Amino acid sequence: MTVKTNVNVEAQAIEAKKASKKLMVLSTEERNEALLHLADVLEREYETILAANEKDLEAGREKGFTEAFMDRLSLSKERISDFAQGLRDVSKLEDPTGQVLSDWTLENDLRVEKVTVPLGVIGMIYEARPNVTVDATGLALKSGNAIVLKGGSNAINSNAAIVEVMHKGLAETKVPKEAVQFIASTDRAATNELFTMKEHIDVLIPRGGGKLIQAVVENATVPVLETGVGNCHIYIDKAADVEKAINILVNAKTDRPAVCNAAETLIVHKDWLAENREALVKALQENDIQVHGDEHVLDVLPGSVPAGEEDWANEYLSTDIAVKSVDDVLEAIEHIETYGTKHSEAIVTEDEEAAQKFFALVDAAALYHNASTRFTDGGALGFGAEIGISTQKLHARGPMGLPALTTIKFLMKGTGQIR
Amino acid sequence: MTVKTNVNVEAQAIEAKKASKKLMVLSTEERNEALLHLADVLEREYETILAANEKDLEAGREKGFTEAFMDRLSLSKERISDFAQGLRDVSKLEDPTGQVLSDWTLENDLRVEKVTVPLGVIGMIYEARPNVTVDATGLALKSGNAIVLKGGSNAINSNAAIVEVMHKGLAETKVPKEAVQFIASTDRAATNELFTMKEHIDVLIPRGGGKLIQAVVENATVPVLETGVGNCHIYIDKAADVEKAINILVNAKTDRPAVCNAAETLIVHKDWLAENREALVKALQENDIQVHGDEHVLDVLPGSVPAGEEDWANEYLSTDIAVKSVDDVLEAIEHIETYGTKHSEAIVTEDEEAAQKFFALVDAAALYHNASTRFTDGGALGFGAEIGISTQKLHARGPMGLPALTTIKFLMKGTGQIR
Repeated sequence: MTVKTNVNVEAQAIEAKKASKKLMVLSTEERNEALLHLADVLEREYETILAANEKDLEAGREKGFTEAFMDRLSLSKERISDFAQGLRDVSKLEDPTGQVLSDWTLENDLRVEKVTVPLGVIGMIYEARPNVTVDATGLALKSGNAIVLKGGSNAINSNAAIVEVMHKGLAETKVPKEAVQFIASTDRAATNELFTMKEHIDVLIPRGGGKLIQAVVENATVPVLETGVGNCHIYIDKAADVEKAINILVNAKTDRPAVCNAAETLIVHKDWLAENREALVKALQENDIQVHGDEHVLDVLPGSVPAGEEDWANEYLSTDIAVKSVDDVLEAIEHIETYGTKHSEAIVTEDEEAAQKFFALVDAAALYHNASTRFTDGGALGFGAEIGISTQKLHARGPMGLPALTTIKFLMKGTGQIR
Repeated sequence: MTVKTNVNVEAQAIEAKKASKKLMVLSTEERNEALLHLADVLEREYETILAANEKDLEAGREKGFTEAFMDRLSLSKERISDFAQGLRDVSKLEDPTGQVLSDWTLENDLRVEKVTVPLGVIGMIYEARPNVTVDATGLALKSGNAIVLKGGSNAINSNAAIVEVMHKGLAETKVPKEAVQFIASTDRAATNELFTMKEHIDVLIPRGGGKLIQAVVENATVPVLETGVGNCHIYIDKAADVEKAINILVNAKTDRPAVCNAAETLIVHKDWLAENREALVKALQENDIQVHGDEHVLDVLPGSVPAGEEDWANEYLSTDIAVKSVDDVLEAIEHIETYGTKHSEAIVTEDEEAAQKFFALVDAAALYHNASTRFTDGGALGFGAEIGISTQKLHARGPMGLPALTTIKFLMKGTGQIR
């Protein structure tokens, strides 16, 4: 597979739009059958994909990428089977389109139905993770959308091969292969072209690090589904149960430090800290948690280093944690308001009133009372599939399932009604 | 009231954000009481408002504005009473916040609630229509949101007086007067400042002509609720009932030609046209509808003038109409795809299959089978209040009621759950 450097992004987007019209008239079953067939074909043709993946890995080794990066890039027969299984799982989910959200009849007998329909064309911009190529295609086709894929340059051979195999598979289904467009370019200009293609692309979904997402949000005129960073806080209130508090803190910080629903800052009530210092110190030490604390914390927690302004805003994605001490729940809420990213925020307390204040005043997608922030996740919440975790307020907020890939139409059925 | 030219837009937005926090903890009743009180105060202080309005009218007369423009600008005791009645009506509507959209319990007994909450701060950018100042404030407060108002320069004295009166009224309620911010500037730079104030403003709503809306959509990084132009089509199919077709056409074109759900183009099947030419000609003549037709139409409909490319895209907002003849429903759908604005589109036919194709393939907020496009309206659909008609696909599409001014929070109630 040769990677072109000159691609006609607009022509591909137009093809996707045309294909999306064909997708709209397919039945749920026809789309599910295509997903199942894609799964089989991916497993059957895994060697083609692995051969292409080897090229990306070789280039990656030459560039000296980190182990974690190489791990995400690297495919195997088993991983490809996992992708296939993912498609089979998605095929079993409820069709998010064609759902009548509400219906009523006006006094003049005009019937009104508010029905979910596909968005049309999804533009997916992501980093060097070949799994997204399959996942995103599965979610798009399941929800009746065409997709334009623009993956990270360092996975371009793997992605090209995956799409080639999927195209081959789609040719044997009712889904037109033009519904899956792959921008085979390592040129950043190709990505930028997608930003303004409002006529052909209905929504852009950036998946990856903060910088990628910000670039899309700031430059795109196509609407964006923003999935963002999580600077999540655990607030241990004066009236917090010590066991719950420590369990939740340790879990939210250390279960998977690199994910967006992990805790990055502990806010702790000074009275609780005074009373439970020893238990907290023990837990922090046992779990190798490095504290960056404010002045009061530095005095109280041994081994802590001073926290600067940047620590309050930092998404460590490691076992480091910023620790801020406060005098009451309102001070905690204010700190979250200043530094939070509106993702997931938790309060640990036995005081119902404090919890209610926290729920009412903290502006975030997910709020927790006496539970770990780690549950902000489509899988954990039982959504079946997750597009991402939205940190925006419009359209979808928090973990997004398949319905986030739909819009609505009002369908009016009359017998000649005029106004 | 002196109009300042130097305003601190950011300081006002920050005040609005602070006030929005206070609004969030008020009860439905407290917000409704504030609306009712505002209604009374507006009626009581109408003379202050009329005096300020007179200044705007005088300036408008000097500038030689059109009669229609002056009419929209002009206030009277009765109009102010209408505004007050509008607030009273809104106070009676269901609170769109605090609604539990869904709730479930995970296997580990973590309770999940998906609840509607206010967006926070709404930025309203509108033209010289003082009624929007009151309407938008009412909808914002009803839904628990603060609002930043930036109205058209030519109504600045009227708007300033209305806000002054409302502030006076709010001082006697639980709603902080800072929840209603008025940008008292005629400087366009003040509007532009709102475009990027993402930290303090949660959504911008432009209300007015296409140019205003496009300026906001293209330049704002704050999310926008886009209400757009309506280039709506009536497609008269081969199998259309002649009476229904003509009634719907005349109603959609002439009932209120200047509104966005009025028809701008008639697409007509050539066979139907051949058979029903006389009836159509009679209806067009009786209703003074000026036809801009394609070549076939020019031959068939007397008095029609040639339609150019610009006619197919034009929102006439008059009794002019573009007429396109087609050979089948797919050609009609294609024309709508090329020139439509995804607002409201109608098919008149007795052929169920043609109607189904139209419903499946036309990409628009509202689709009609055998009814006039004029029903795309929050009032007509029974929404109680209408924020505008969204021509975007994300968040809200079509007529937007109060729920469009809310977002959601996931509220998780646990007993120490970790993952």
